[in-house]
This record gives sequence, C-alpha cells and structure tokens, in this order.
Amino acid sequence: MKEFFKVTDLNKVFEYTSLFPCVKTEEVSLSEMTGRVLADDIVSDIDLPAFSRSTMDGYAVRGSSTFGATEGNPAYLAVKGSVAMGESPDFTISTGEAAKISTGGMLPEGSDSIVMIEHTEVLDDTTIEVYRSVAPGQHVVEAGEDIKKGEIILSSGRKLRPQETGLLAAIGKETIKVFKKPIIGIISTGDEVVPVDEIPGPGQIRDINTYTLSGQVQEAGCIPLTFGIVRDDYDALYSKCAEALSQSDMVLISGGSSVGVRDYTIEVLSNLPDSSILVHGISISPGKPTILAKTQNKAFWGLPGHVTSAMVVFKTVVHPFIKHIAGMTLQNTKKWWLSALLSRNISSAQGRVDYVRVRLFEKEDVLWAEPILGKSGLINTMVKADGLIEVGINTEGLDKGSKVEVIPL
Amino acid sequence: MKEFFKVTDLNKVFEYTSLFPCVKTEEVSLSEMTGRVLADDIVSDIDLPAFSRSTMDGYAVRGSSTFGATEGNPAYLAVKGSVAMGESPDFTISTGEAAKISTGGMLPEGSDSIVMIEHTEVLDDTTIEVYRSVAPGQHVVEAGEDIKKGEIILSSGRKLRPQETGLLAAIGKETIKVFKKPIIGIISTGDEVVPVDEIPGPGQIRDINTYTLSGQVQEAGCIPLTFGIVRDDYDALYSKCAEALSQSDMVLISGGSSVGVRDYTIEVLSNLPDSSILVHGISISPGKPTILAKTQNKAFWGLPGHVTSAMVVFKTVVHPFIKHIAGMTLQNTKKWWLSALLSRNISSAQGRVDYVRVRLFEKEDVLWAEPILGKSGLINTMVKADGLIEVGINTEGLDKGSKVEVIPL
Repeated sequence: MKEFFKVTDLNKVFEYTSLFPCVKTEEVSLSEMTGRVLADDIVSDIDLPAFSRSTMDGYAVRGSSTFGATEGNPAYLAVKGSVAMGESPDFTISTGEAAKISTGGMLPEGSDSIVMIEHTEVLDDTTIEVYRSVAPGQHVVEAGEDIKKGEIILSSGRKLRPQETGLLAAIGKETIKVFKKPIIGIISTGDEVVPVDEIPGPGQIRDINTYTLSGQVQEAGCIPLTFGIVRDDYDALYSKCAEALSQSDMVLISGGSSVGVRDYTIEVLSNLPDSSILVHGISISPGKPTILAKTQNKAFWGLPGHVTSAMVVFKTVVHPFIKHIAGMTLQNTKKWWLSALLSRNISSAQGRVDYVRVRLFEKEDVLWAEPILGKSGLINTMVKADGLIEVGINTEGLDKGSKVEVIPL
Repeated sequence: MKEFFKVTDLNKVFEYTSLFPCVKTEEVSLSEMTGRVLADDIVSDIDLPAFSRSTMDGYAVRGSSTFGATEGNPAYLAVKGSVAMGESPDFTISTGEAAKISTGGMLPEGSDSIVMIEHTEVLDDTTIEVYRSVAPGQHVVEAGEDIKKGEIILSSGRKLRPQETGLLAAIGKETIKVFKKPIIGIISTGDEVVPVDEIPGPGQIRDINTYTLSGQVQEAGCIPLTFGIVRDDYDALYSKCAEALSQSDMVLISGGSSVGVRDYTIEVLSNLPDSSILVHGISISPGKPTILAKTQNKAFWGLPGHVTSAMVVFKTVVHPFIKHIAGMTLQNTKKWWLSALLSRNISSAQGRVDYVRVRLFEKEDVLWAEPILGKSGLINTMVKADGLIEVGINTEGLDKGSKVEVIPL
C-alpha cells in the first residue's frame, strides 16, 4: 500500500488562518456599505436623536397633566400650538397645556410625554379631552437614548447589514473605511478539461469548477478573477500560478486530478518565490487531497478536481480563511446553523471528518435531514442538497434521529 | 376614539401578491448566473458524463478479474497501457488485464471498474498485484449517471446557487434566460428629514431609510434606485412618485410620518393614473400604517417613517412580493429558519401579528432567543438583533421556553 501524503487534521489546518494578513482598506460611500467589513471602530460624535422626539401622532403634554384621566373622567387640556416637522417649537408647555405633534416631531420645552391622538378628542380650536393618562417619557425617545455622543457604536471587523449602514447614515458618516473585497484567483487544470463553449471530445469534460468556485467566491463577498484552464505542464502551470498570484489576494487551483498534475502543483507551489507547503492532504472526506501553501504571504489552495469535492472544501475549509483575510473578526464569523434530525443511519470512517450532503424536509413540525444517495462525484447531488452535515473525526457514524447541524449550501 | 384606517390581515395582504406581474427576462452569461432566477426550464441535450469516468487514481479492470483478491492472495493483472487524460483509450481490456488510469479518466472498452492505486503494487512494467476485489461499477461514474439527455435538470423560477451554475456549465449553456433584477425605487419623505451630508438643525434628522432600504433591496437580489427626500407637499410628492414609478418595477416610499404626509401619500396613490389602494393599514406591529397600492400594475408601498418599522415591514411583508415579481416560484421561496427557545415571557396584543427583535445566544447546547429591550423606534435595537420572531395574531403572548422560529435580520 502506498501513502500518498500525510494528512493534516482539520483543526490544525484552521490554526494556519492567522498566518495570512488581512487585505488592505479603502473608503466607500454609504450606498455601497452593506455587506462590507468595517476597518475602523466607529465613534459617534453626536447624540442620537439630537432632541427628544415623539414616537406617536398626538399631543405633547406634561404626563402629570393627564394623571387619572379616563373615558368617563377626561382631562381637559389647552392646545398651545402645533409642532411643525423639522422645526424647533417656539413655545413651551406647562401643566394643563398640550401641543399637537406628529411622529418624529420635537417635544416643546416643558413637555415630557405624548398622548396618542386615538386617546383624545378635539372640543374646539383650543381645547382637547384626554381619555388616558400617560407617564412622563411615554411615547418619547429622549435625546441620546439611541446613541450617546462618544460611544463606540460599531467595531472594526464587523460585517455591515442594512441596519448598521443606517446607523452610519444617522450619524452622518458619508464614507467609511472598510476592508477591500478580497480578489480570489481561480485556475482550472487538467488535460481532459475544455472551455464551456467547446464541445468535449471523447474523454473530455467541460470546465465546471471555474463557475462553481466563482459563484462561491461571490457569495462570500469577494471578487473572483478567473484564469482559465492550464494544461498538465510544469512551465505552463508555473507561469499561470505566478500570474494569478500577482493579481489576487488568494488563489484557488482546482483539478490536477491526475497524479502528474498533483505532483506539478506541489512542485510549482514549492518553487514559487517565498513559498512553502503548509498542508498536503486533510483528514476530511470529500477533499482529502487538498493542498495549502503560503506563497508570498498569500494562501494558495490546491483543490480537488471533482466539482463536488472542490465545492465542499471551499465551504468547509477555504471559507474561514477568506473571512479572516477579509478582515472579519471571530465574533462576526459566528454563524448559527439549522438543527435537524437525521432521517437514517450513516456510517463514516474514524480518523476523518465526513461532510454528507443532505436534503431538508419537514414532517409533523420536525425538520429532518435526509442524506442524499448517489455517488459523491455527481454534481446532481449538490443540486439536490440543501446543506452539509459534519460527521466528526472520532465517530463511526450517526444514528437515525441524531441531532445534526446543517451547513447551508 | 378615532380609527385612522381599517387594517388588513397579513394573510389577506399576501393574497395580493399574485396581482403583480413578474419582471421581464434577459440573457446573462455563466459568470453572472449565480443568484439569478431561471426564466426557462433547462433540458440537457447531452448525457453527463458523456463517457464512463474513473473516480479514483488506479487501474481500470474487469471487476471479475479481481474477485477473491486479498493481501495474502493477490490477483496478478497484465498492464495493457495507460489512459491519457482527455483522450479515448485506443485499446480494450479483457479478463486478467488492467490499464493505468487517473481520476476523471475515460474507462477503456471492456473495463467496468477501478482498483484504487492504494490496493495495488507494481511488480514490473507489465504486471501489477491487486490486493482487493472490486465490484463491477465500483469507483466509476457511468455515462449519463449524473444527468440524462432530454431530462429537465432545472425548472423555471429556480434561484441559482453555484452548483446550479456549475450544472449549466457542464452541459455547455454559455448564456441563459433569467428574470431581470427588479429595480426598486426608494423615496424618503418628511419635512424633518435632511440628506446625510447635512448637519441636522433643531428638530431635524438625517435620512436613514434610503440607506437601510437600499441595503435590504440589495440583499434581496434587486437594484435599488434612490430618489432622495421629498417635502410634505402634494405636487412635489405626486411628481416624484410618478418619476419613480416610470423607472422602477416597485416603489417604496417611506416616512410621511406626519398625518399630513400620510394623507398626501394616499391622495397621490389614488390620483396616479391606473392606481388603486389595496391596503391601508396592516394588522402587524410594528408596521401598522403600511399602505399598498397597485399602480400601473406595480406594487407601490407606503412604509412607516420609523427606520425600524420600515425595515421590519420590508422583511416580513414587502420581501415576499419582491420574490414574486423577481420570478421565484413558491418552492424556491421556502426557507428554513432557525429554531430557538424564548428566554423570557413576552406579551402581545391579540388581533395583530407582532414581530419581536431577538438576540441569539447558545447555552448548554441550546439556542436561546432573547427579546431585545428598549423602545422599538431605536435603530440600536436592530443593530443588536440577530432576527425577528413572530407572535401570532391569536396569541396573547409567548411563555419563556416556547419554541420560536427566527427570521434572520
């Protein structure tokens, strides 16, 4: 028996993440902010809101003026005026007085709460009846209640959702420093691989990995840069790898499914300037023949040629490295996954982590994960799959009904 | 008491989805395919793979030549040749013969299975020892096993993930008809609202909704088209709405938090050519004052002015309409959500659906959803939130420990 390579444990592979530096930063405007990763802590230089605002349509009052008011025993208040939106009221409110106000309006001095319009009745131009009491502070957002001046409101390394973008808009940050989107170079190899626009001859197949990996790179918030197909030839591979490396923050080379190309890939990755092989084989399935080199401070991955294996390795192994170089801090890479119950027994070899494709279905209010049958090389199985489940390295398998976490595909 | 508007049940609102037509279609190339929605059923015009392929490095054999082989009692096979990648072997394999082959190689005629190289030993240039038996078909993907010629492999209305893009690459589809990305017009209103680059005066706030809604539109796979801020003025609102409508597939107008503007919005939506108000108020919280009009066959939404309410309504009410006009079929809008246990009691009014912001945390292997305290208008609460939970219309609240589904934010 031959041992082709010494496999590395997955946990050990993840320890290499920190060897790679984050990408550089750039300033982007608010309209391009969502999905980007903050490169600075953001401190608010204002209180938000800057003034006490009404959260309802109604009347600004002193809460004490309404105490005890009911439908049977209303409070009668004198209407002092009306608050115009976007303006500072030029009057004050005393006990027994009220001012008409809309949602978002600025509370007049002296008022501390809002009576909802539904709980009032207009008697005449200057008098209203109030049917409910309000507590001071009710239906009001106080100045500084949302955000306080000087507060760190968002930390570096945070991936921005629409609400974080909104928060930046609220404090007037027109542009923000974020990490650049990592550029991920993608190379396909193999003498059997032809471009999509060619009709494959006998023994040939079309290049699929360029497209699946590009799609995964896009989904990860990065920019794919494709370098086409390289023949199984040392010089061609060397120059293509060097080219991809010079233009990318990380490179994925897939294929080299034949032993020859795998050897070439290792040789090229060893011979490129300032390059060392960190991993040559990982104790996972699919994906065992995965290679990781550190080349000029960049991660250079040799992925399996099988489309399904390459996709699984991207999802489970490469993606955490991408998050790291994209500047995301650990707390931001935390993801909650769906839990489901396994619909049938699955077996697994000890000594490796297995990733099993599953389809999800709901039955009697329970979410089930059904392992997908069929040979693992079929792209079909990825199309049918909703996610992957992990079968741990020290496990011989999982029983039907086991609780599993589903990595979404 | 005043009733401002008759609220519509959420289920009734969703029934209006089908009133709106899908957007038009366009041809896009493979590299832009991921995330798009198919506008045609895709039929494969080839078998995939087109030939029987090895899934391992090893030797192509007739399985029967290896029956009974063990380490102690190996089978001896004559090596007939080597399969070059991407070529059709020019020899055949008979009983007792083998051909060297790499993963992805084309099986020579007469062979039906692959012996893994790990289970062989080279004796000399023309002879190998085989230590394990293989069954016919083992480590082989048969021609047509992945995809059969003439099969519908993907259906119209399906949103494409990287693996679906890969499948299209595999069958040589360079361009595909997909639904256009819907263009969603976004208008902010309110006399109190100023652009982000202005310093708000007393009583004024910056325009946040333009950015939060743009971010949500982008996340939904659509193109936001922003129209800035309109003052509380009928004519200005009318002309801005008409402009947005002419350039968009759907329009979101947010704000009009003052009663006056809400009235103007209703008036404008009623007066635009070919327009009718379908919904004026929905039995949800937050988001009750939401308006839906059908204007020139497009959905025109009046969203609340509060940033948090507008975001929640987008997520829970507007998004299903977007999926519909984007061409996604119902099966593709099915989403599995995280389940969690509620960390404390929450109360809710009957007669409306409540959406409560929650933070997720894990404790002793259980995922908990903790309702976020603080006034609902604070954008802060959206920044802290991981998701929303729904408290049903006929429920007075939920007890601590209840199982809840979490709509991701």
